Parts: sequence; structure tokens; C-alpha cells
Amino acid sequence: MSSFTIQPIGFVRSSRDAAIDDDWDAVTALIELDAEQLQPDATQGLADFSHIEVVFLFDRVDAAAVCRGSRHPRGNTAWPQVGILAQRAKDRPNRVGLTTCRVQRVDGLRIEVSGLDAIEGTPVIDIKPVMAGFAARGEVSEPAWAAELMAGYW
Amino acid sequence: MSSFTIQPIGFVRSSRDAAIDDDWDAVTALIELDAEQLQPDATQGLADFSHIEVVFLFDRVDAAAVCRGSRHPRGNTAWPQVGILAQRAKDRPNRVGLTTCRVQRVDGLRIEVSGLDAIEGTPVIDIKPVMAGFAARGEVSEPAWAAELMAGYW
Repeated sequence: MSSFTIQPIGFVRSSRDAAIDDDWDAVTALIELDAEQLQPDATQGLADFSHIEVVFLFDRVDAAAVCRGSRHPRGNTAWPQVGILAQRAKDRPNRVGLTTCRVQRVDGLRIEVSGLDAIEGTPVIDIKPVMAGFAARGEVSEPAWAAELMAGYW
Repeated sequence: MSSFTIQPIGFVRSSRDAAIDDDWDAVTALIELDAEQLQPDATQGLADFSHIEVVFLFDRVDAAAVCRGSRHPRGNTAWPQVGILAQRAKDRPNRVGLTTCRVQRVDGLRIEVSGLDAIEGTPVIDIKPVMAGFAARGEVSEPAWAAELMAGYW
């Protein structure tokens, strides 16, 4: 099976420099896009959207040590052991992170956001505008542990 | 700036084999995960979620021909010229696709879904459960063209 090369399009500049699980709303973040990867008009019209999806790389995770089976989320045995694809933990194959955050300001290749749970220096792989037509359709449901895990996240 | 290698964790098996813009709800899709990348319990508990986010690669797009500035969505000049990061077009840097779809059935390394706009053979990079705590927070707004573009999509 062939592999693919990803070139970061920019990096996160954040006031948080360590992977801490909770209280992400205390963090401000800037996405600095790379002028070698994108032209200044790559963000044209982006400020007309309230939210973006940011795809990034958990680059501080050891790629050789990711989970390929199941584990308890956050190692908490009060929660069920679930597959790595049934949780959003960072030690996952390909180490891809994905967060919907709010656009605060767009200035060429600089995007100020709130609600981005990525630490200083995180490589950004892609940014997409949140469109209502792409939201989950039908009722959204999740197991109880997922709601418990998110209780202190923001 | 260093690049990263991505190894597909599986592939899309779809009834659609060509990149057509609209009517994706007519398409059924199966994600076949790779047993060399994941253990069978990697999907344990996934069926307790109604929806997943599927991160995939638009591998039929020529990587050398992606847009790094702005263009009219779908080439339609009735819509504004916007940056590639302000639209979800497939010819984007790193060629990453991202869709929220509904889980129909999980059977080990086979996941049946509906609402996946990826064609036959598409490499899958990651799968994440949709958690309410990770949804867009605050009011979501978008420009008029985005709603018009999505009118016939599903």
C-alpha cells in the first residue's frame, strides 16, 4: 500500500506549549500559513465564515508508539476500553488532529482563532470552512463516556 | 519545513467511481480498514456513535496542479472568487478530504456508512467519532454562495 507525503501549510502559534487535556478555552491561537505553500489570496473570503475545521499533525507523538487497537480513553478505567478509531486521542495512526474552531480575524496568511486545541509549533495540514450543508445530518448520538470526557475540555 | 509521511489505514469501497459534484446520497460506501495498519479492536465501541468524521486523500487529483491561491468555486463566476482555504474543493494543498457521515454498521475492520462523498479506491487517513463536545460552538454562519453550492449535493 503506497504512502503519501504531506507538506505542512503552516504552523500553530499558541500560548500553550505542552499537551494538557483540559481548559482549552484559556488558550489563544494564531495560524501562520507558509508563504512558500500558499499565496496571500488563499484565505480570501474566509472571514465570511464563522468557523473553520483545522486539520493538523500531533507531531510530538512518537509515530512508532501509536495505538492500533483499543485502550481506555485517557487511561481511565471507569470508561470502557474502546478502539483508537472510536476516540479522538492523539496517539493514533497518522497522528492527525481535527478541530472546529471560531475565526476571529483573517489577515492574509495569518488566521486568529479561538477554540483550537493544538499546541505551539503544531504543523497544520489543511483548513476548511465550516458549511452548514456538511454538518452531521440526522440526530447525533454518542456514548455517555464521550460526554463525560468533554466536560472540562473547553 | 519538514514533510510527513501518511500511510493509508484503509480504502473506500463505493458504488461511485468518478468525481461527480452532486447527488451523493445515492451512493453507498464501505470503508475497508487495512489489517496491517489496525487490529480488529480498533473499531471497538464505534457503533455507539451515530456519526464519524472520515479524513481521506483526493488521490486522483494531480498533486502538482493544486490551487494555492483563489478561484471561483466549481469555476462558477456567479459565485465570488475565494481562497482555496475558504472552500472545500478537492484540488487543494495536501489534497485532504473530510466528511461527516453516518455509521450504518461496524464489523471489525469493515465500516458501512452513508453520506460519504469519496469515490471507489479513495485512501482513508483517519476516522474519528463525532462528539457533541467537539461541534462548532456559537452561531454558525456562512456566505450565501456556500449554501447555494450545497443545494444539490446530497
